[in-house]
Amino acid sequence: MSSSSAAPTAKPPIRDALVAAAFRLFLERGYEQTTVDDIVALAGVGRRSFFRYFPSKEDVVFPDHERCLADMTAFLATGGPEHEPVRRVCDAARLVLRMYAENPTFSVQRYRLTRQVPGLRAYELSVVWRYERALAEYLRGRFAGRPDGTLRADVIAAAVVAAHNNALRSWLRSDGEGDADAAVDQALGHVQRTFGRPTAETWAAPVRTAPEPAGGQPAEPDDVVVLVTRRDAPLWRVVQELETALGRT
Amino acid sequence: MSSSSAAPTAKPPIRDALVAAAFRLFLERGYEQTTVDDIVALAGVGRRSFFRYFPSKEDVVFPDHERCLADMTAFLATGGPEHEPVRRVCDAARLVLRMYAENPTFSVQRYRLTRQVPGLRAYELSVVWRYERALAEYLRGRFAGRPDGTLRADVIAAAVVAAHNNALRSWLRSDGEGDADAAVDQALGHVQRTFGRPTAETWAAPVRTAPEPAGGQPAEPDDVVVLVTRRDAPLWRVVQELETALGRT
Repeated sequence: MSSSSAAPTAKPPIRDALVAAAFRLFLERGYEQTTVDDIVALAGVGRRSFFRYFPSKEDVVFPDHERCLADMTAFLATGGPEHEPVRRVCDAARLVLRMYAENPTFSVQRYRLTRQVPGLRAYELSVVWRYERALAEYLRGRFAGRPDGTLRADVIAAAVVAAHNNALRSWLRSDGEGDADAAVDQALGHVQRTFGRPTAETWAAPVRTAPEPAGGQPAEPDDVVVLVTRRDAPLWRVVQELETALGRT
Repeated sequence: MSSSSAAPTAKPPIRDALVAAAFRLFLERGYEQTTVDDIVALAGVGRRSFFRYFPSKEDVVFPDHERCLADMTAFLATGGPEHEPVRRVCDAARLVLRMYAENPTFSVQRYRLTRQVPGLRAYELSVVWRYERALAEYLRGRFAGRPDGTLRADVIAAAVVAAHNNALRSWLRSDGEGDADAAVDQALGHVQRTFGRPTAETWAAPVRTAPEPAGGQPAEPDDVVVLVTRRDAPLWRVVQELETALGRT
């Protein structure tokens, strides 16, 4: 970072030094056996400096999540109605991947540490939950007024996070080898195909499979539906048409 | 419970008395202001009795989750290949709803408490994560050998949990008024329609929208697809046919 500001978000050298010292000790002695005093002694700074950057020892394990959450929220806030909502949350999730992929060695070390320390696992779950809520809140806004809008928003946000983390964990377990971007693209592609939205035309309707009944009586509902769609229509739009025609909305 | 066993899982009177005393104090004084000593004094038992049933003060807030997790795991383990996997995990999730709905007053009180105490919120997230992993592990087994099997398993498990919790939270926020079963059925129905599997027939194919080109040359791919389906066909099967016809598999 080239910023001359000393604000914690500018990631000054002291903050970096604290993270480096903490991880060196966590790996050498174990997380539980390392105190904040040990960390500040190795980094050559005072306790107050530590707590200026990190509220607790747990926070130093995840030094970039607050920034990433802020980046995600800002990214979603700048989206307009022209952005397809499911694609937008998938792109927002990629910000998390970028944070992990910026420093593969650190990310893999942290992954191993988090597997071993239940308190860190709980911390990580609460971070993941905050990402998921940020995505869900954005989608709730985009789906406002739709029947099942909040349900749909919550389900898609959870699906995006699960797909992202499935690919991320595979990459971390491979010690950061392999192409993290390709793995996450493939996983998020699965979610976009399942939930993504309309951009072209499609049409569906029940059709009559028996002759008109005599005497002008209303017929029973027909048991066959025909759908005609452009080959390039998004699957979501086609499914929406189908649900209407099948009477399942 | 009519069991004469004194095992903790049989929910004997002491355990119930500890939960009742704890909640009375949490509501009167607040969670943080209540100690384990306060709880055992009100319940009229010793500290050792408390720790016999609950590893920590947090655990007394969620006295039935371990039993429910065990019930869920057992339910999933008894499923055979005849059970449609998405439906099976939805039915497993209903066991959690049943636990909440057994005692609406207690569930609503706990919901409010959990909203106020960050430590309890973190505890709850770890419990939700364990339910989600139980569902995902079952689905991974059912989808073994499928391309994207683990991805699909993780995404569906997350979607089921998100849908279940969306409905559960609505019911808790309504102070336990309203029909919890109907709300959860509706939410899980949304997931089943999105991901559920084939049981009936459907058919889709590209159709020719222009005359055969002269000279027997192969035509360009047609840009329209027609699908014919029984009205009672499951949406998943219809979408699978469509994906094939649209060339998106």
